[in-house]
Amino acid sequence: MAARIGSYEVVAESGNARAGVLHTAHGPVETPIFMPVGTKATVKAMLPEEVKDLGAQIILGNTYHLHLRPGEELVEKMGGLHKFMNWDGPILTDSGGFQVFSLSKLNKISEEGCEFRSHLDGAKHFISPEKSMQIQMALGADIIMAFDECLPHPSPKDKIIASMDMTYRWLLRSKEAMTREQSLLFGIVQGGLDLELRRRSMQQITSVDLPGYALGGFSVGEPIHLMHELVKVLGPEMPAYKPRYLMGVGTPLDLILAVDAGIDMFDCVMPTRVARNGLMFTSQGKIRIKNEQYKYDDGPLDPECDCYTCKNYSRSYLRHVFSAGEIISSRLNTIHNLYFYLNLMKKSRQAIKDGNWPEFRDHWLNRLAN
Amino acid sequence: MAARIGSYEVVAESGNARAGVLHTAHGPVETPIFMPVGTKATVKAMLPEEVKDLGAQIILGNTYHLHLRPGEELVEKMGGLHKFMNWDGPILTDSGGFQVFSLSKLNKISEEGCEFRSHLDGAKHFISPEKSMQIQMALGADIIMAFDECLPHPSPKDKIIASMDMTYRWLLRSKEAMTREQSLLFGIVQGGLDLELRRRSMQQITSVDLPGYALGGFSVGEPIHLMHELVKVLGPEMPAYKPRYLMGVGTPLDLILAVDAGIDMFDCVMPTRVARNGLMFTSQGKIRIKNEQYKYDDGPLDPECDCYTCKNYSRSYLRHVFSAGEIISSRLNTIHNLYFYLNLMKKSRQAIKDGNWPEFRDHWLNRLAN
Repeated sequence: MAARIGSYEVVAESGNARAGVLHTAHGPVETPIFMPVGTKATVKAMLPEEVKDLGAQIILGNTYHLHLRPGEELVEKMGGLHKFMNWDGPILTDSGGFQVFSLSKLNKISEEGCEFRSHLDGAKHFISPEKSMQIQMALGADIIMAFDECLPHPSPKDKIIASMDMTYRWLLRSKEAMTREQSLLFGIVQGGLDLELRRRSMQQITSVDLPGYALGGFSVGEPIHLMHELVKVLGPEMPAYKPRYLMGVGTPLDLILAVDAGIDMFDCVMPTRVARNGLMFTSQGKIRIKNEQYKYDDGPLDPECDCYTCKNYSRSYLRHVFSAGEIISSRLNTIHNLYFYLNLMKKSRQAIKDGNWPEFRDHWLNRLAN
Repeated sequence: MAARIGSYEVVAESGNARAGVLHTAHGPVETPIFMPVGTKATVKAMLPEEVKDLGAQIILGNTYHLHLRPGEELVEKMGGLHKFMNWDGPILTDSGGFQVFSLSKLNKISEEGCEFRSHLDGAKHFISPEKSMQIQMALGADIIMAFDECLPHPSPKDKIIASMDMTYRWLLRSKEAMTREQSLLFGIVQGGLDLELRRRSMQQITSVDLPGYALGGFSVGEPIHLMHELVKVLGPEMPAYKPRYLMGVGTPLDLILAVDAGIDMFDCVMPTRVARNGLMFTSQGKIRIKNEQYKYDDGPLDPECDCYTCKNYSRSYLRHVFSAGEIISSRLNTIHNLYFYLNLMKKSRQAIKDGNWPEFRDHWLNRLAN
């Protein structure tokens, strides 16, 4: 019998790290997992079949971008986001909050919601918790994020408190607005970089019974070690039998540290975005493929890697097509970086199940330190 | 026993149209065939395996571009163009002449060769027939084009005569400079739009015994019906038991007309270039995918097409990703247009073999007229 949609099972633990399975309307997701970002109904430079072949089980879509173009009404008419973009696995959509506050112009926030101008054409828009839920349901997302306010770093303490309290009230309204059984609503913990405020927000958010919870408000320009310290404390304090999602994070090192703190889910534009800029993650550290030293290098990008790029092309070729501005450069680089992230999480799951997570973790923390 | 490299067999004929097989060092090429253009060691937006899966048997590389960046010396050190770009089928390289005359700055032509400045950085370069052969051999091309002068349209008659006479002398030098057995040298007929000059050039060029001959100097801005008329006359007059290559041509309609005149090989940037600009070839005529009328169109780009794009995406999605400037747009559009060209040639081969070429030709001439 198929598992209930929204159920989550922890199948193995090692310290605070855990491996589990989350059941969605489009199939199971094994955690810990990295979710490639498909902002505008495409994971940049990739076909959906390729993303799946690299090991992706779930991808992320951006509510803000899809609302502005092509619009959720069009996507719904075309059969929903899965059919529209030819991806039959689970999809998580964010709430639009982060982009409203970071990308749009002249945003005006009130208890009701947020008025903003599109970064595309300056047109006026309004998103409330109810509107965000309506958009995400119209897209047909398997996991829907509550509409939250995401403050920049640094923000004054009184502003953080007022904002996280409003985020809690917005969560209640988000939940109330949910009318689609196949979509799972996740709540988002805010509270800036203050541990006590984070704990207070966590208490608020987790007082609402939901199939999953997230830590939001990181990757907004804060010193990275503060994020590491907070996640280390907060991860294990999140509800144990629900998936834990650290939003918008991060580097491979960030992921290993967060898995060690019991985090299950990640998303980040980093592997795909830096790939298009020629920055590659490898088992030997980061490589800038445009560097002169790779001009005559006939070896693979990462000798330990099994991805299509590393098996078929030399560093010399990757440097040439990057320099020439060829589309194949974005493709080959994205394939490698996504594989690196997805494979790191796959090997983490295996290490947790095999009982050698501490060795695996220390090995990679050492390698990724440069 | 494997066929001799450079041998060409006509396996079926229908009027002047013919189907054949050309044997190269990297395998046989069934004609008539369209060769996708891989200017800078990549068919733009495509992986080599995808190009092969679409039905391509041979691709084209550009000597001018590869000489300037990354340089044939680098490609040779990396094991040759096939290995460098991960394509194990046949490769034809052009001579660099066309680009020297059309892309580079301040070119100075003499009997010796052509001095020019790179369009990339203004650096001074010199290409002669001997140099062009040396570059193409270093790249490891299966088919090498003689170094010719390609005049713009219109050019005065005396200039055309002087140029085609020099192109003949350059062919003799090109042949003399060839030292690589696996590379087949093709000669290029010039002569502008004057039938008598074309015939004189053809007599000069075909007086040199070579494994193949090409018609050059078309697609340089001349009225298209003049090209059609000349090819109709010249095609059947080219040596019958050698492959006949019409360089840089053209639209699907141009291809059908030229196959009917006995042409065997084609190359053109058109299907890939216009794909990236959203212009699609379909069995129902041309489509500009950005048009408003496709916004809510949930049907495939071409209902008669079996390509990956048409089987998995709606016109609505193709319009969305084109408008959003996503890389997947270039990919999906290129897949379709290349498939359209390659499949048109595949079906032409079959029609010639099956004895129904006249019906097939008329059917497509009618369809492609819009």
